[in-house]
Amino acid sequence: MIKKIAGNICAPKGFLAAGIHVGVRKNTEKADLALIYSEQPAAAAGVFTINEVKAAPVILTEKHLKHGTLQAIIVNSGNANACTGKQGMSDAEQMAAATAAQFNISADKIAVSSTGVIGVPMPIEKITAGIEKIKSQLSTNGDSAALAIMTTDTFPKSIAVEIELNKKTVRIGGIAKGSGMIHPNMATMLSFITTDAAISSTALQQALTASNKLSFNMITVDGDTSTNDMVVVLANGMAQNEKIDSMHHADWQKFCDALAYVCIYLAKEVARDGEGATKLIEMQVHGAVNADQAQLAARAVCRSPLVKSAIYGEDANWGRIASALGTSGAEVDPEQLSIELGTMMLLKNGTPLPFDEDAAREILKQKSIVIKANLGKGNAQATGWGCDLTPDYIKINISYRS
Amino acid sequence: MIKKIAGNICAPKGFLAAGIHVGVRKNTEKADLALIYSEQPAAAAGVFTINEVKAAPVILTEKHLKHGTLQAIIVNSGNANACTGKQGMSDAEQMAAATAAQFNISADKIAVSSTGVIGVPMPIEKITAGIEKIKSQLSTNGDSAALAIMTTDTFPKSIAVEIELNKKTVRIGGIAKGSGMIHPNMATMLSFITTDAAISSTALQQALTASNKLSFNMITVDGDTSTNDMVVVLANGMAQNEKIDSMHHADWQKFCDALAYVCIYLAKEVARDGEGATKLIEMQVHGAVNADQAQLAARAVCRSPLVKSAIYGEDANWGRIASALGTSGAEVDPEQLSIELGTMMLLKNGTPLPFDEDAAREILKQKSIVIKANLGKGNAQATGWGCDLTPDYIKINISYRS
Repeated sequence: MIKKIAGNICAPKGFLAAGIHVGVRKNTEKADLALIYSEQPAAAAGVFTINEVKAAPVILTEKHLKHGTLQAIIVNSGNANACTGKQGMSDAEQMAAATAAQFNISADKIAVSSTGVIGVPMPIEKITAGIEKIKSQLSTNGDSAALAIMTTDTFPKSIAVEIELNKKTVRIGGIAKGSGMIHPNMATMLSFITTDAAISSTALQQALTASNKLSFNMITVDGDTSTNDMVVVLANGMAQNEKIDSMHHADWQKFCDALAYVCIYLAKEVARDGEGATKLIEMQVHGAVNADQAQLAARAVCRSPLVKSAIYGEDANWGRIASALGTSGAEVDPEQLSIELGTMMLLKNGTPLPFDEDAAREILKQKSIVIKANLGKGNAQATGWGCDLTPDYIKINISYRS
Repeated sequence: MIKKIAGNICAPKGFLAAGIHVGVRKNTEKADLALIYSEQPAAAAGVFTINEVKAAPVILTEKHLKHGTLQAIIVNSGNANACTGKQGMSDAEQMAAATAAQFNISADKIAVSSTGVIGVPMPIEKITAGIEKIKSQLSTNGDSAALAIMTTDTFPKSIAVEIELNKKTVRIGGIAKGSGMIHPNMATMLSFITTDAAISSTALQQALTASNKLSFNMITVDGDTSTNDMVVVLANGMAQNEKIDSMHHADWQKFCDALAYVCIYLAKEVARDGEGATKLIEMQVHGAVNADQAQLAARAVCRSPLVKSAIYGEDANWGRIASALGTSGAEVDPEQLSIELGTMMLLKNGTPLPFDEDAAREILKQKSIVIKANLGKGNAQATGWGCDLTPDYIKINISYRS
């Protein structure tokens, strides 16, 4: 049983966090530097952007993760440190070194993460000065870190859960930021997850990869994959459960389910808080040939500007859903295709059904909209999440960079 | 030499056209039925949507094209006849049969095309009654047909050109409609092209496929591929040039270049008139591994809501272009990547250059914006076109279907 508890990244034993203002961007007092620290070295795993143009901190953190052990994560918002050439990589390395120096550990035990404007040099002196101060702010309350990683998110995203593994209580906590872009190029999905579970880095990576596929990889706000996306999980073993040393350990699936629960919760929060969004869209695809095609289909609907505009307009324009499914890359049998809005069947086995427009509009007036489609080709399914497309999306994204 | 001339689909010898109002949609007096007729049976070729959910007229016209000969095209706007089940196919067949009956030819010599709302039964009696009247309106002026195929396009798109093939004058004319959607699901790209060239249907299809790849397949307004996209070309041979009987005929490349010129012109007109658009974006990609990757990269930039919003906001936010290229599926060398806006270099071999924001804004104030990128991986190139994303796009697309 997965039990939701108070707190976030500091809910698991032995984790401390802090968030402070160092002034990465001018003209804002927002906190912009976060530190997450584990009292003991932790097994670590990560998933990263597939963008060919990767930010320097992404490249560095992927490299540090090869050892499978991390002890701290240093994150700044306001500058992505992407497309910044050799200087950018040197700046990311300096962030790791400065953090490591505070704790007398080696720099390759540090994950570095950045989010913000692309192509602008990092104000590295401000960051390193901040790193010297932030250690003294560490506490068992993760809220300031959750705030410091935000860019134009309208609310912090955090969660903690508790499970029992072989009579030991294990906790998993996480924070995330989504894509708000008052300043262009701030769209970056970052999430940091902590757990006191005892688990090997390999088993942890397998659990994260599986969970990520069902959660962060299944949300879309605008279809643009950032240069900086990163999810990192630290597991410090302080729950003293029997160590999960592989995917085949009896507790792996239980841990994985709880990790997926945390990831899905945070991913949905990110979709709900997409730029300018007023509604969360949940797209359930059934009847696909395989899981990959089901995922393609679910994401295509969530990504379609036409579907997103119709949902903002509270218009049950299911033809756009059919069209998006048909061009998603997933196989669709047009004569078996069915589409439901909430509990209302709109298209059944390829034939449009008459429906009550007023009742449909009532469903669309809700803040969360569930759409189901059956592709009529197989038995695989997937769920994706997105948000509506509103004039505020454009308003947020036309602003000048400075 | 390709010479632009007056007129459109009736500029080539032996073509007649008409457009009339039959009332497919209520509450509008707009013309909504178009007929294009060749005095002689014409070699024909077509390219169609790759959407798995294809409209009935797309399926029917693909079938009729197997013979390689067509003599007329009947098109309605206001209803897409897509997701309309068995009745939809029967309605499309009835449109072909009613048109064929007017000319005493067989129904498989007719191309049928529809654009408009998805999932609503066709008002077939209105259409067939219109077909009985439209023949009497045929003339050598194609303008009324260009108007009748429009949905919420803000201007008709048409062109005609003249070339010499072995001392004979050959003409190619074309019309197209793009994606305006005052009523949802009206997004359909249709284009009809006529020529009096003597060319076999096989050589014509090869020329159309090659031209289409460089033109209609390289534009994007919102990334949503319609259920109804269709480009059909008729060649009636009345120019009496030496028949181009294969790709290897001396005149094939000349004809193909002129056809590509027509297709690119119409495609750019469609992009320029995308829903809510204020600017045309031309994305030139160089340095790709191969042409397919260059095309992927060009289309990804034109599709990116972040790039499109920045261009609407006249903000030289080149980081978004780098990010879109990096996630396009094309290989990119981040250390060799270069990006130019107009004549202004912003990123050179992976290093951002300082630039004059005011000068950049001057370039972005133009109605046509040219962006160049070099991916640093090879020698292939491609050009794509799109438009900016504006609040009007959403305004147009939230409206109710009726």
